[in-house]
Amino acid sequence: MKLLQDRISRDGKVLPGNIIKVDGFLNHRVDISLLKELAEEFYTVFAEDKPTLIMTVEASGIALATVTAERFGLPMLFAKKAKSDNIEGGLYKSEIFSYTYKKAVNLIVSAEWLNADDRVLVVDDFLANGEALRGVIDIVHQSGAELVGVGVAVEKGFQPGGQKLRDAGYKLHSLAIIEKADENGISFREE
Amino acid sequence: MKLLQDRISRDGKVLPGNIIKVDGFLNHRVDISLLKELAEEFYTVFAEDKPTLIMTVEASGIALATVTAERFGLPMLFAKKAKSDNIEGGLYKSEIFSYTYKKAVNLIVSAEWLNADDRVLVVDDFLANGEALRGVIDIVHQSGAELVGVGVAVEKGFQPGGQKLRDAGYKLHSLAIIEKADENGISFREE
Repeated sequence: MKLLQDRISRDGKVLPGNIIKVDGFLNHRVDISLLKELAEEFYTVFAEDKPTLIMTVEASGIALATVTAERFGLPMLFAKKAKSDNIEGGLYKSEIFSYTYKKAVNLIVSAEWLNADDRVLVVDDFLANGEALRGVIDIVHQSGAELVGVGVAVEKGFQPGGQKLRDAGYKLHSLAIIEKADENGISFREE
Repeated sequence: MKLLQDRISRDGKVLPGNIIKVDGFLNHRVDISLLKELAEEFYTVFAEDKPTLIMTVEASGIALATVTAERFGLPMLFAKKAKSDNIEGGLYKSEIFSYTYKKAVNLIVSAEWLNADDRVLVVDDFLANGEALRGVIDIVHQSGAELVGVGVAVEKGFQPGGQKLRDAGYKLHSLAIIEKADENGISFREE
């Protein structure tokens, strides 16, 4: 998606360790009007799959999932990290490795809010190693719901998460796939 | 706000320890169409204060802040909990006590995205002891920005957070204030 590629090129930064910083518009300070354009693209790609629920993972996927859910006219459900007091029994749980926090964390979803007859579109802001998405997909499968697709804003094409999802046969649509990011700038995979 | 009170009465549950469970529509599975009505109410109350930025705290405030930011046509900035790799130096930081996680956590905001000339409307889904909001407000003050108001969906009126903010002179607007919640049900403060 050229709009997103252009924004990444203009406002993104590359930090040591291949960290791509897009926190001025995507995952810290969030440009809601940009998210609406991204959600519109997800609608174009995934409306035919007739989702009944938009899912994501806390925290940085929530804004994009919210705007996407609004576009589809659907509710949004986010997987939480670790146990809080405010969720009673009956949980789906999946352990993932968080590269951000450098430790294993549990994703949890209250079983009450994810049903076997749901058709789930998973949305996230970033896809690198794919651990967070693996956990959400695992939870969707535990519930008996159907995963109809995965929509990602920014995929780091040089990390294995995207390929793993494609190899598994999922309908993955990434709005921008970064092929290379270094001191010389950011280049994208053209499809 | 009657719409929200009615929804809490219909779908909310009271758990032992005065925990009010609204996770079927507000902070786990999120009813986006309800959030749009709440955002409309925030717009009615706070448009006159001319905010330039909507702020919240991860994670459960993000959906409401996103829809509110959309209604105002403004960006949304969320304070993060604890340090992740993806934020470079230049942080505002405030330590709060998290009742959810039963430990002290640091709220952080990249200084780059909060400016002294911003007029900040802080939005959150819940107000109980007010620790999270105290941290965000502290960060707003550190930046030199002006706090123009605080919009909350559900205030637990029997806990001290709301009164503290009113005593401090802030313009606080809670869409539903729960006066009492026990095995007999939930009652609201009428204003």
